[in-house]
Amino acid sequence: MGVPSPNPPFTQDPSGGFREAMRRLAASVTIITARDEEGRPHGMVASAVIPVSMEPASMLVAVNRSASLHPVLVRTRRFCVNILGCQQEDLLAPFSQSALREHRFRSADWHGATGAEHRVLPWLRTASAVIHCDVDWTADYGTHTLFVGLVQAVQCPEAAHETYPLVWLAGRKASITTAA
Amino acid sequence: MGVPSPNPPFTQDPSGGFREAMRRLAASVTIITARDEEGRPHGMVASAVIPVSMEPASMLVAVNRSASLHPVLVRTRRFCVNILGCQQEDLLAPFSQSALREHRFRSADWHGATGAEHRVLPWLRTASAVIHCDVDWTADYGTHTLFVGLVQAVQCPEAAHETYPLVWLAGRKASITTAA
Repeated sequence: MGVPSPNPPFTQDPSGGFREAMRRLAASVTIITARDEEGRPHGMVASAVIPVSMEPASMLVAVNRSASLHPVLVRTRRFCVNILGCQQEDLLAPFSQSALREHRFRSADWHGATGAEHRVLPWLRTASAVIHCDVDWTADYGTHTLFVGLVQAVQCPEAAHETYPLVWLAGRKASITTAA
Repeated sequence: MGVPSPNPPFTQDPSGGFREAMRRLAASVTIITARDEEGRPHGMVASAVIPVSMEPASMLVAVNRSASLHPVLVRTRRFCVNILGCQQEDLLAPFSQSALREHRFRSADWHGATGAEHRVLPWLRTASAVIHCDVDWTADYGTHTLFVGLVQAVQCPEAAHETYPLVWLAGRKASITTAA
C-alpha cells in the first residue's frame, strides 16, 4: 500500500470508479419472477437483492425501469426471489438475453411457469431458497425502482441445504465454500 | 428433491423460514462509517448494501433504527462504505460488540478516524473498495431506514485488486475465488 497518505487517492471519475468498486462487491445471484394478467411468466436476473427487516419479514429488490419485468411488478405487485445454487449458472443466459426469451422457463426445474394470474408465481424447485413476496412499498430512484415485498411464504429445499449459492464477483462466477 | 409437487412445500412459519433463506444468501461484508458533529467516528458492520443506479452513481444501505450509527446518519447525512477484503475479518469484532467500542478505529489501517466534522469520513486504506456518499434520500420501513447515498468519491486501492472480498454465508466467513 506504500506510505499512508493523509490525502486519500480519490478517483477523479466517481462514476468509473464506482463501476470498478461494484465489481469488488460479491453478491448472490437470483432470478426474480412474476406473472402478468394473462398468466404469462416473467423473470429477470438480479443481484441487488437484500433483506430489509425481519419484523415484518421483508425483502428489497432494485429493478431498472427499462427491464421488461418492471411494468409487470408495478401492475401485479407480486414477485418471487429464487436464490440460485452454484450449479445453476446455465439458467442465467435465457434471462439475460432477449433473443433467448422463449427458453426462460423451459427447464423442468421451474414450477408454476404456466397458469392463471392468481396462481403461485414461477419458482425454482432446485433453488437454494425461494421467497414469495407481495409488494408493500415502492420508490423510484434514478434509473431504478425499489420494490419492498412482504414475505408471504418461503421454501428452503432440503437438498439445497448442502449446496453453495451462485455468487458473482468481478463480472463472473465465483467459487464459494465455508470451512467445515 | 423427491417427486416434484404442484403444491410447493410452503413454510408454515414465513418468519423462521425467512431467516433460514437469508442464511443461504451470500453477501460481501462492509463497514459503514460516519462522523458526528463533535468529530467522533462511528461505524457499523453491514451486508445489506447494494448499488441502486449507475446514473446517478448511488448506493443503498439498510440500517436498523436501533443501531448507534442511525442517528448520526440521520443528522450528518454522509456515510462511507468500506468493502472488506478476505483478510480483514479481525476488524469485525470491535464493530459488532459494544464492549469493544473503544477498539473500533484503533487499527492503523483506518484513515481519517479523528478530525473535525467536515473532514473526510473514516476510511479503510486496505479495503477492497471505499465509496464515499452523501445521503440523498431516506425512507423508513419496518425496523430499518433505507439510506440512498449519491457517490461523491471512490477509492479502489491497487493492492486490493488482487484480494478477494470478505463474504458471509450461513452466519460465517466463506472462502471465495474466481477461476483464472
